[in-house]
Amino acid sequence: MPDQPHDQYVVGVDYGTLSGRAVVVRVSDGAELGTAVHAYPHAVLERSIPPHLAGSELPLPPEWALQVPEDYREVLRVAVPAAVAAAGIDPAHVIGIATDFTACTMVPTLADGTPLNEVPGLQDRPHAYVKLWKHHAAQGQADRINELARTRAEAWLPRYGGLISSEWEFAKGLQLFEEDRELYDRMEHWAEAADWIVWQLCGTYVRNACTAGYKGQYQTFDGQDGEYPSPGFLGDLATGFDGFVADKLEHVIGQLGERAGTLSAEAAGWTGLPEGIAVAVGNVDAHVTAPAAQAVGAGQMVAIMGTSTCHVMSADVLREVPGMCGVVDGGIVSGLWGYEAGQSGVGDIFGWFTHHGVPAAYTEAAAAAGESVHEHLTRLAADQEIGEHGLVALDWHSGNRSVLVDHELSGLVVGQTLATRAEDVYRALLEATAFGTRVIVETFRDSGVPVEEFIVAGGLAKNALLMQIYADVTRLPLSIIDSEQGPALGSAIHAAVAAGAYPDVPTAAKQMGKVRRHVYLPDEARAAAYDALFEQYLALHDHFGRATTTMRRLKAIRRDAVARRTYRKTQEER
Amino acid sequence: MPDQPHDQYVVGVDYGTLSGRAVVVRVSDGAELGTAVHAYPHAVLERSIPPHLAGSELPLPPEWALQVPEDYREVLRVAVPAAVAAAGIDPAHVIGIATDFTACTMVPTLADGTPLNEVPGLQDRPHAYVKLWKHHAAQGQADRINELARTRAEAWLPRYGGLISSEWEFAKGLQLFEEDRELYDRMEHWAEAADWIVWQLCGTYVRNACTAGYKGQYQTFDGQDGEYPSPGFLGDLATGFDGFVADKLEHVIGQLGERAGTLSAEAAGWTGLPEGIAVAVGNVDAHVTAPAAQAVGAGQMVAIMGTSTCHVMSADVLREVPGMCGVVDGGIVSGLWGYEAGQSGVGDIFGWFTHHGVPAAYTEAAAAAGESVHEHLTRLAADQEIGEHGLVALDWHSGNRSVLVDHELSGLVVGQTLATRAEDVYRALLEATAFGTRVIVETFRDSGVPVEEFIVAGGLAKNALLMQIYADVTRLPLSIIDSEQGPALGSAIHAAVAAGAYPDVPTAAKQMGKVRRHVYLPDEARAAAYDALFEQYLALHDHFGRATTTMRRLKAIRRDAVARRTYRKTQEER
Repeated sequence: MPDQPHDQYVVGVDYGTLSGRAVVVRVSDGAELGTAVHAYPHAVLERSIPPHLAGSELPLPPEWALQVPEDYREVLRVAVPAAVAAAGIDPAHVIGIATDFTACTMVPTLADGTPLNEVPGLQDRPHAYVKLWKHHAAQGQADRINELARTRAEAWLPRYGGLISSEWEFAKGLQLFEEDRELYDRMEHWAEAADWIVWQLCGTYVRNACTAGYKGQYQTFDGQDGEYPSPGFLGDLATGFDGFVADKLEHVIGQLGERAGTLSAEAAGWTGLPEGIAVAVGNVDAHVTAPAAQAVGAGQMVAIMGTSTCHVMSADVLREVPGMCGVVDGGIVSGLWGYEAGQSGVGDIFGWFTHHGVPAAYTEAAAAAGESVHEHLTRLAADQEIGEHGLVALDWHSGNRSVLVDHELSGLVVGQTLATRAEDVYRALLEATAFGTRVIVETFRDSGVPVEEFIVAGGLAKNALLMQIYADVTRLPLSIIDSEQGPALGSAIHAAVAAGAYPDVPTAAKQMGKVRRHVYLPDEARAAAYDALFEQYLALHDHFGRATTTMRRLKAIRRDAVARRTYRKTQEER
Repeated sequence: MPDQPHDQYVVGVDYGTLSGRAVVVRVSDGAELGTAVHAYPHAVLERSIPPHLAGSELPLPPEWALQVPEDYREVLRVAVPAAVAAAGIDPAHVIGIATDFTACTMVPTLADGTPLNEVPGLQDRPHAYVKLWKHHAAQGQADRINELARTRAEAWLPRYGGLISSEWEFAKGLQLFEEDRELYDRMEHWAEAADWIVWQLCGTYVRNACTAGYKGQYQTFDGQDGEYPSPGFLGDLATGFDGFVADKLEHVIGQLGERAGTLSAEAAGWTGLPEGIAVAVGNVDAHVTAPAAQAVGAGQMVAIMGTSTCHVMSADVLREVPGMCGVVDGGIVSGLWGYEAGQSGVGDIFGWFTHHGVPAAYTEAAAAAGESVHEHLTRLAADQEIGEHGLVALDWHSGNRSVLVDHELSGLVVGQTLATRAEDVYRALLEATAFGTRVIVETFRDSGVPVEEFIVAGGLAKNALLMQIYADVTRLPLSIIDSEQGPALGSAIHAAVAAGAYPDVPTAAKQMGKVRRHVYLPDEARAAAYDALFEQYLALHDHFGRATTTMRRLKAIRRDAVARRTYRKTQEER
């Protein structure tokens, strides 16, 4: 159509844990025309930093997880042009680009955005690298932050459900401060990777409202400027840390969908896109998915269901919801309060069970039928009446993120008899995650933040049995995102808004987002049958999550035993 | 040695659930010289009575379990001569025979001992057949017996730990009374199979003190005659049932080791043994094992560990132990109070787990190493520090026999994470059964009946890891019976006493019984490590066994669901 008025396009780039995905999207209707995925060459550094980076092999302590910033730039140089080529469009017709990122993933930089690991002489300092979201070595710092915040009755604590995570900006920053003070002093910005990548694209550093709020504890109050935790609080945490916010964190905040700047000549060279096109403010993979599923209104809860589940929902009221991850002004959609909650284990529990709890007869039958073990178990489990297995499980194999916020909790199955079969336990685990979601939905509702619709994105949306269980257990109509690449589509929507093609994200979402509405409806008879099981789930939830220390004691006993074994092995080796 | 003074022999016959085993034993030292096993041709009738017995196929309701008396006689005709042949002895040198049986297994008979199913015209009446111990269709009757006994505060109830089982004489008798009154009226004796088989051998009906006490609720009081539940109680249960004891049950009681009579000409013909030799009073498989393991003194607890565990122990005091199965004067050894307790599921839980919870990689690795799955899991689990798996389980997959006496309870595993492996759960299940035993041991101790030694018989004694766990968890020295056929050896000991070769069972046990003493000793460091896990087990035990209704509710929900499914299938088929 060279002689006709041409279509306009945007590029969305989704930065995941192991790779970056670029998608070219048509502005008028959200059609996804081309995709390319590029894996990070260094993936995640968990055991050591390799010699070609650090000079010599540099071992890392347990619970560390680092990344290399250059890998992120490489996605721009490789995946973006490849996606444009795959789309078969003229890159001159691209009007904007936007990105979303894992969070909280932190880059220590100089004033101009240079990551410290790229500063000559610093490449052999582990703290100079990116701390990925799943870097869990700052748990000690997080514990102290929480303890002090409780002692000082900090007003911001309830906004985070009463607990700050070791994954977030303050715990990771305090670890850097305490373990490599010289590096901390050299660092001029403690930047979210979500914002650093935008900085690389347009040369301008803007903190996005989403991560600043959820991960950086920046809170706004009716119409006033926002606040971070105070210097007094920080000074009480560690002598000399009182300047952390003012010196390393504080910076201009950009709202989601706003333009952070325009594509620089250098980034235009990397991507092959036109210099000067709009670059949107950064965003987070889970949160950016909401507009991709047209879920931008109050009461529309989006659940991104994969190995774990992240729940995001906007509301026009500010409420304190016990045990949620956080509530942030404009955290999902500018102008509304964005709420976040989560379940630390969902798909990974099902995966663990298929690998470690299913006997050979099932794996053989699945193979013979050309099914995956998941499909086989699902088919067997689907044939049951609700409650026929006689089981209830607790879905805390990876701890509980909401509403108990306790990673010392663990999994449980009750009701087993000699007649219990693998499909029974599998179904009980599916149901347990649905009950976990119901607890979250009801906690929001009881706190004055009603949930009206449940929209699912992520890989688990494919399991029809699981989806029907969720609809029945929550008594909510269940919609499914109609895109395989929700976050990248969500970023593209933000690029379109930043480019001025739409006045705001909700309007763009209506045109470009994709959802199959009310695919699963609750059935009252089934819902009532689940009520009886949920009553037992809740009794177990409150007993093990609140009343007793059994699960914490078991973790402590396990840690002691592992220490004894390590000591014994050391003695034996001498 | 035809010209030397010959050795004397006895025959012990152990009647199990599916077969009868005859063993020829030398009186002087208990040497087991020949064995033969004969399977019951009709095994257990659970779904129907076959046409060649009943005329036409006769379906049975759920929970029924019948046997055919002629199968028991066939063991005498086949297994006894075969064992004598295998021993290579002259049958003329056999001086006595004794039997032990499953219990409570009941035979309805005429006055001469003819089983009702052998009476012409009654062979198509299900109630005319033997009700095997695991016939569980009299639960409704048992519930009413317990309810009424509590209401009337019957003095005998605490002797049975507060609960009468559906397996026992009264519940099964009441079911017969209510479901086939004509047959009940024709019945002249409601006999234990343990006594009926002795009756077949010697023509004399003697009720043995063991089953009369444990299963027939016959209780003695210091030096006086014993008592059964009163006609008033029975009349309150059901109109017309007041004569049950006097008309069907009451009969002369024989003490264990006494002579019931002498071998009849007919039985001599069946067995090939000399007419006129001693026939001992009947006995029960678990109880008869105690002398076979030389465990006839106070404080020596014998655990017969197989699919389930039966604990028997003598004491010189009468105490009420909460939740025990019963205490009977001379119930194990004449002259001492015999205590019985049990765990409804042990080996069958381990077996269930290896079949339904262990992935292909383990079964393949076991096969490659030439191990059973049990051996493979045990080897992996044995390498762990105590508590390293982070798990605690409840061993109630088949309910709890002692001390909670509740078959509505079920199994539980708590502490699972994504790092949990099959060997972790397997070890937690082994430990759970040891904790269950510790609860029983401590309940006896707290009730004034101390346990000093733990002697194991049965198939599980072979598992060294399991045995060491039991020693450490209970802090008791653990001895192992040194015979593969403990019950038959125990019967042989009773035959020797009945024949006058020894003055009493303890004296005979000392010569003929076999035990490896203190094979496993408790280690204080390991015992202390288990204390921490046991504390959590106990918390779960009391929570699920006493404080909450979760497990009972799950069973009720399951029953409702099965009923819904049955209804749905019926509707679909129409």
